[in-house]
Amino acid sequence: MYRETIKVLDCTIRDGGLINNHHFTDEFVRAVYKALSLAGIDYMEMGYRSSRQVAPPADYGAWKYCDDEKIREIIDGIESDVKLSIMVDAHRVIEQEFAPVDQSPIDMIRVATYVKDIDKAISLVDKCHDLGYETTVNVMAISAENEHDLIEALDQLAKTPTGTVYVVDSYGYFFSEQIEYIVKLYQDHLPGKRIGMHCHNNQQLAFANTIEGIRHDSNLVDGSLYGIGRGAGNCCLELLIGFLKNPKFCIEPILKVIQDYMIPMSKDLEWGYMIPYAVTGFMNQHPRSAIAMRKTDGKDKYLEFYSQILDLLD
Amino acid sequence: MYRETIKVLDCTIRDGGLINNHHFTDEFVRAVYKALSLAGIDYMEMGYRSSRQVAPPADYGAWKYCDDEKIREIIDGIESDVKLSIMVDAHRVIEQEFAPVDQSPIDMIRVATYVKDIDKAISLVDKCHDLGYETTVNVMAISAENEHDLIEALDQLAKTPTGTVYVVDSYGYFFSEQIEYIVKLYQDHLPGKRIGMHCHNNQQLAFANTIEGIRHDSNLVDGSLYGIGRGAGNCCLELLIGFLKNPKFCIEPILKVIQDYMIPMSKDLEWGYMIPYAVTGFMNQHPRSAIAMRKTDGKDKYLEFYSQILDLLD
Repeated sequence: MYRETIKVLDCTIRDGGLINNHHFTDEFVRAVYKALSLAGIDYMEMGYRSSRQVAPPADYGAWKYCDDEKIREIIDGIESDVKLSIMVDAHRVIEQEFAPVDQSPIDMIRVATYVKDIDKAISLVDKCHDLGYETTVNVMAISAENEHDLIEALDQLAKTPTGTVYVVDSYGYFFSEQIEYIVKLYQDHLPGKRIGMHCHNNQQLAFANTIEGIRHDSNLVDGSLYGIGRGAGNCCLELLIGFLKNPKFCIEPILKVIQDYMIPMSKDLEWGYMIPYAVTGFMNQHPRSAIAMRKTDGKDKYLEFYSQILDLLD
Repeated sequence: MYRETIKVLDCTIRDGGLINNHHFTDEFVRAVYKALSLAGIDYMEMGYRSSRQVAPPADYGAWKYCDDEKIREIIDGIESDVKLSIMVDAHRVIEQEFAPVDQSPIDMIRVATYVKDIDKAISLVDKCHDLGYETTVNVMAISAENEHDLIEALDQLAKTPTGTVYVVDSYGYFFSEQIEYIVKLYQDHLPGKRIGMHCHNNQQLAFANTIEGIRHDSNLVDGSLYGIGRGAGNCCLELLIGFLKNPKFCIEPILKVIQDYMIPMSKDLEWGYMIPYAVTGFMNQHPRSAIAMRKTDGKDKYLEFYSQILDLLD
């Protein structure tokens, strides 16, 4: 698939940070930045800009806050065209500050929001836009929203200055037919906006659904190295780059950083396809119960887990 | 997705057998048969009917031969509506014998063939059909065939008594757009025949491509427990059953046999998504080089492997 307008965002550090409380080493983050730069990836997401009031530094690593100064340390001396993004939860904005874009290493601020918090998201978009940042709005967990409310939110977003609105399949529930439907719904209600895709791999559909989005003209797509991310993880960046035909992309640095860092890391951190995530996926549930059970001695008691999920729905 | 005509075949023992020379224990095969019976799965594939001249018994377990008597031992005493199938390679038929269907526990014989061996496949189909068996023809590696030859083979198959012709993505190369194209090509050239789907998971697309086939009216689809199969493995049966809405299917016995057998087995046998299989997948190559390198000390040297594949193509 070649279309010059398709841009790729790597969310390794940000979504991967959800499994280790954002404690990635500087060496690793720098290696990822270097690899993405060589590979021609368009954006790298460094983490969250969280409030230290809500998320105390005793509990989290640097990538929970993504201070401009910290980012500068990482990228210092590495030649790169990669733009940097950070994520902010619309419902957790308290005292976070953002420098004007020309005083910051960050290019793009992605606002994660639930439909119910859309007004908070819009207020943050306006603020970031005024400071000169590119913005996206990532509407989470839409497979569990009713369509009337989702459409109202999309209609509101249509009037904002944000350039991109994301389809976020937080529960890894959707299959291709639903992705097609949702992307077209977004397009109908967001004239002129770019559509983004952020898919989870609960049912091994993250890459397939990302492709499906691309086929229906989504032009900003997320991947992560070896699919790292919370629970079942994300669309694998290496698969995306194997699929996209734009000659500016180069897969070798991606393969190298996976062999050097992701494979050793996968011995200590757990992510990827597992039965409990498949179950929450096809049941259209938040993965939190699956994540919790994977930390217990009963982590492979799938039948019991399935029965608990059924009980919860009663 | 509900359509009464969709039938599901489990190829755990057959395709999984390719990673352990078909040495599954009777206890395991019996547990799988029991689980599939309780889960309402339509077909279970027991393995190959190989020639002992070509495949000497010193090298292989019982499921390389699938003698009728051996199968009878396994299924004895288990109540079941599951039909049984075996696979035969069209290009490796020498001295294998098949009893008439009413004297055999087997219901269906699947003929695996390359396009070049289609006449051998047809001769075997005719023979099995005369003995009363259901048959399918599984045309392998079609992503690497030229379309002219493939069409000629399909046109020949159209005139045979076989009921089903399979799309087999042996290299795990196809994505959804290509699956749609191929399934429609099959339909055009095989009027009245059922289309089967057998997908490999090199690019994490086995489940997605199987769904894509179903959307375009494929009605016999293969899965395996936890995706077991050679290299990157197959479409996960548990995902298929989570997706299909026919109330005759029941997922609990599948989850149970996965937790009891597949998870322990996955500590000793390797299958599933890995970078070398992704590489051969998106390069449209046979996975043999990836399978070989995974048995060496350099099994995680992805960059070197990619470069070898590039060299091979020169």
